[in-house]
Amino acid sequence: MSLLVDRRDLDFQLYEVLGIDDLCSLPRFEQHDRSTFDAVLESAYQLAEGEFAGHAAQLDANEPTFDGERVHIIPEVKAALDAYIEGGFLGAAFDEEVGGLQLPYSICQALAAVFTAANVGTAGYPFLSAAAANLLRVVGSPEQQARYMQPMIAGRFFGTMCLSEPQAGSSLGDIRTRAIAQTDGQGEGKYRIVGNKVWISGGEHDLAENIIHMVLARIEGAPAGTKGISLFIVPKFLVNEDGSLGERNGVRLAGLNHKMGYRGTVNTVLNFGEQDDCIGYLVGEPNQGLAGMFHMMNEARIGVGLGATVLGYTGYLHSLDYARTRLQGRKVSSPDPQGKPVAIIEHTDVKRMLLAQKASVEGALGLCLYCARLVDIQEASEDQAQREQAGLLLEILTPIAKAWPSDWCLEANKHAIQILGGYGYTRDYPVERFYRDNRLNPIHEGTNGIQALDLLGRKVVRGGGTSLKALLAEFSKTAEAAADYDELQEFSETLKQTVVTVGQTTQSLVAEAAGDADRFVANATSYLQMLGHAVIAWQWLRQALVAVQADAGHDTDRHFYAGKLAACRYFFRRELPAMELHARLVAQGEDSCLTMQAEYF
Amino acid sequence: MSLLVDRRDLDFQLYEVLGIDDLCSLPRFEQHDRSTFDAVLESAYQLAEGEFAGHAAQLDANEPTFDGERVHIIPEVKAALDAYIEGGFLGAAFDEEVGGLQLPYSICQALAAVFTAANVGTAGYPFLSAAAANLLRVVGSPEQQARYMQPMIAGRFFGTMCLSEPQAGSSLGDIRTRAIAQTDGQGEGKYRIVGNKVWISGGEHDLAENIIHMVLARIEGAPAGTKGISLFIVPKFLVNEDGSLGERNGVRLAGLNHKMGYRGTVNTVLNFGEQDDCIGYLVGEPNQGLAGMFHMMNEARIGVGLGATVLGYTGYLHSLDYARTRLQGRKVSSPDPQGKPVAIIEHTDVKRMLLAQKASVEGALGLCLYCARLVDIQEASEDQAQREQAGLLLEILTPIAKAWPSDWCLEANKHAIQILGGYGYTRDYPVERFYRDNRLNPIHEGTNGIQALDLLGRKVVRGGGTSLKALLAEFSKTAEAAADYDELQEFSETLKQTVVTVGQTTQSLVAEAAGDADRFVANATSYLQMLGHAVIAWQWLRQALVAVQADAGHDTDRHFYAGKLAACRYFFRRELPAMELHARLVAQGEDSCLTMQAEYF
Repeated sequence: MSLLVDRRDLDFQLYEVLGIDDLCSLPRFEQHDRSTFDAVLESAYQLAEGEFAGHAAQLDANEPTFDGERVHIIPEVKAALDAYIEGGFLGAAFDEEVGGLQLPYSICQALAAVFTAANVGTAGYPFLSAAAANLLRVVGSPEQQARYMQPMIAGRFFGTMCLSEPQAGSSLGDIRTRAIAQTDGQGEGKYRIVGNKVWISGGEHDLAENIIHMVLARIEGAPAGTKGISLFIVPKFLVNEDGSLGERNGVRLAGLNHKMGYRGTVNTVLNFGEQDDCIGYLVGEPNQGLAGMFHMMNEARIGVGLGATVLGYTGYLHSLDYARTRLQGRKVSSPDPQGKPVAIIEHTDVKRMLLAQKASVEGALGLCLYCARLVDIQEASEDQAQREQAGLLLEILTPIAKAWPSDWCLEANKHAIQILGGYGYTRDYPVERFYRDNRLNPIHEGTNGIQALDLLGRKVVRGGGTSLKALLAEFSKTAEAAADYDELQEFSETLKQTVVTVGQTTQSLVAEAAGDADRFVANATSYLQMLGHAVIAWQWLRQALVAVQADAGHDTDRHFYAGKLAACRYFFRRELPAMELHARLVAQGEDSCLTMQAEYF
Repeated sequence: MSLLVDRRDLDFQLYEVLGIDDLCSLPRFEQHDRSTFDAVLESAYQLAEGEFAGHAAQLDANEPTFDGERVHIIPEVKAALDAYIEGGFLGAAFDEEVGGLQLPYSICQALAAVFTAANVGTAGYPFLSAAAANLLRVVGSPEQQARYMQPMIAGRFFGTMCLSEPQAGSSLGDIRTRAIAQTDGQGEGKYRIVGNKVWISGGEHDLAENIIHMVLARIEGAPAGTKGISLFIVPKFLVNEDGSLGERNGVRLAGLNHKMGYRGTVNTVLNFGEQDDCIGYLVGEPNQGLAGMFHMMNEARIGVGLGATVLGYTGYLHSLDYARTRLQGRKVSSPDPQGKPVAIIEHTDVKRMLLAQKASVEGALGLCLYCARLVDIQEASEDQAQREQAGLLLEILTPIAKAWPSDWCLEANKHAIQILGGYGYTRDYPVERFYRDNRLNPIHEGTNGIQALDLLGRKVVRGGGTSLKALLAEFSKTAEAAADYDELQEFSETLKQTVVTVGQTTQSLVAEAAGDADRFVANATSYLQMLGHAVIAWQWLRQALVAVQADAGHDTDRHFYAGKLAACRYFFRRELPAMELHARLVAQGEDSCLTMQAEYF
């Protein structure tokens, strides 16, 4: 079995649970069927195992370096990316007419899962590039798309996102990079960009002919805060009208960040227009830069959740493999030292750590692919009501899909190390690397604290709570369906109770903290943890519902479905109850953190 | 303020809560008073800040290497250790007549806290050495003490513990290293040692003239399992009767382990008697090797808990320092982008992560120092009843003092990274290093899963549960005392309820799983988590009781005590309730993990 992501499970999630092949009835995907999906997945596994996984440890140990002029990256990265581009993966999500494969986003996320599990550092480059190209797809002009996006889809140019600045990490409204309109008569939309950006992944390298930076900046005289932010294209090399490369632009590498994990993806500090002129081209309307960026960012957040999930997933499979083969100790009931040691998977506490991982990573994978399917519906369905419903669900699920996997699949990586014991703590095994890599995910693309504020401060209350209602209605539907099966009665009841708890907690909070914004969001993280656990429980019941109905022809399948039911049971009984505690804190308006004074620390 | 361990808090814990200066009324410590304790603490802070902290990051980035002949360690380590030995810290706990300072173990642990917080890698060498010397103090013959222990206390020799073998990590009963009695007429107790040991910290280096390995092995013909294990002294260089060094002994370095953290302490694989003869000297009686080792191991486990605590503690102080100075964002209630950003400590969710750290690290520090004081009482009190009582409490508290801090102060380190955001994820700040270092602590000196088995399978049931009863009686005493104060009423009531919960849960488990050993310990980890949270709540109420009675003369003190009360409140309201969930699982005999089948994964 592959130690990246269990292919059997991926097929289960995509086809048996989500029915992704149904997307092929939509005009946008009518050229596909399950066989094309299977073929591209198969080829992703081959490429990931063959070209990505092999140098992951080496890349981690030999991170990119900067000699003052160039960034050096071990050559295996470019070789892998050339094969990736050759295989068409970079453009998988894009339209055929611009050189893409026009695959559903759901399938693209499944592909991303496989490459991330194999080598998160190397996979980072094309993922960022595809995200930048996707932003241009949504907000770029046809001319900008032709000049910048198409070479990115073809893999000739790579892209970045330049948002953060040293003084404004999470607070985008405080960015200061300036855009000064150029009046050289060479057309509108040309600006001089001056400022600094930090945390720019893929900000400098020789992996592609050119790098297209998507940069947030303020046009002179723009309003303060987020309403005065515009989006610009800043190419490393200017691009001539015929597509050939022109002069080097004044975006310069100031230094590299040296991280705990995710070391293979170079992370940079960039200066714009400090020594020499830096040209930027306005994308969309002035002061509307965040709107497009947020469209992209929602998908990026689901992508972060998926990345966190599969780092947890591959760690789980590595620890499972170890637990099956490592002989040590005996059952507590059979301590005879003359007896043979057992495989450690037979120890109940090891099973606990394996189940905790399984419940987290397979539950989170279900959620991320569910969200990906909603993106497909929202973008490609011909039924407006269906699109709106998908939009409502996505709105409330996105912060959870980002935060829950990044919290709990990191926890899964912690368990994987523990199962390997001292070996897990060494760099001879990859589980410590996954743990270091995954620690990034609660931080980037909006910290999990910011996801909590987004969830409670915006998503839950917006439109009179229609998003939350839509989500709880889905919970109820699943609970109703599960009620027909004896094995699922207990979980069906619990999920129904969960709907009540979430509803009552939200109402109590609204009643208790109405009009006091600080108080309202004081327990935002608890609210997110409450709803997050509820969402994962719902996802597990969806999976269990398929498992209980499945026709298991042979032992392998029978065991697979039994495992799904066991993990569902584990989650409902041992993890879900934590949501009661969070609900209680939220409903009571517990104020220990709100009232703590800075000088008391 | 020092960013190692808050000196104000250390004084609070040692003197205001534990009354450590009362130990000076015992004959063993009568030469000391608070002023000598203060002086040695002051000199520890100076040395730790001056010689240890400065090279911690450098040592992490430049871990020891092995060139096939020698181990190379950056020279700052030896310089720091020479100063440490010169300062008398290596022998702090030992009797004056063998060259020590004869300080209480409690004070020694406070010293260890300071050095560990400054540089866990460098501090590892003398700590291991002191532990090995302490083992000889307890089980060595006078001749062995003179020849090996005294040079260790003087810092001329260093020591190691050699327990684990490749095929027997946690399962000591399965070790295979052989001891073959020598019959060359040179006295009894001389053996030839043949085997392999792994995970030996400090197993090879040039930091001292000699290395004394304390090795577990089986004498030929010994019974299987733990009852056939003997303890041997295996010096790197044989030691002549006059104390001078003789021949190189046949213990050889086979390789180094490369770890995620704790990189500064060289960790080795050692071969004994593979190429050349390896001489070992029996310590104590044949087949009694584990008894002495376990005596030492109990202190080592408290030491691991303390190490985990202070890695969490220094991370907390670093993130607190950052949160006070980093300006970013605005209150949710004052979003005006023209307004000034606030220090992030003003954000409620940042306060939450600071309080979570404070509650964990100061609660855990209280527990570890409480245990250290029990060690002092057990070893130095003249009152037999008091010694026995201390022994009972130590028995049940030791697995908790090892496991709880290593779980929750690692979690604290996670929060510290989160507060620093992207910066926290870089190697420019130390918080990621603390997180990597601290990940070892749930693994070594008995994994936390093994601590849970030790707690529930041995300590809770032994002697009809007298240890648990003694502990719960202490809870009740504290709850009673707290009932006199309005501010503590709520917590007093909760702790009383906790006593009931622990008692009932234990009874339910005994009733439910009697006679089925596997079932009895199936939820051992939940039991440990339940009791662990209860113990920390009790520790917090002890601290709050002092804080509420304290006479705060000036603002600094007033804020300090207010912080103690706020952290106590945070822990009781937001963390302690998790124990209910664990108690429920234990009482119900929840069996998801027990019944999971290996083939279902």
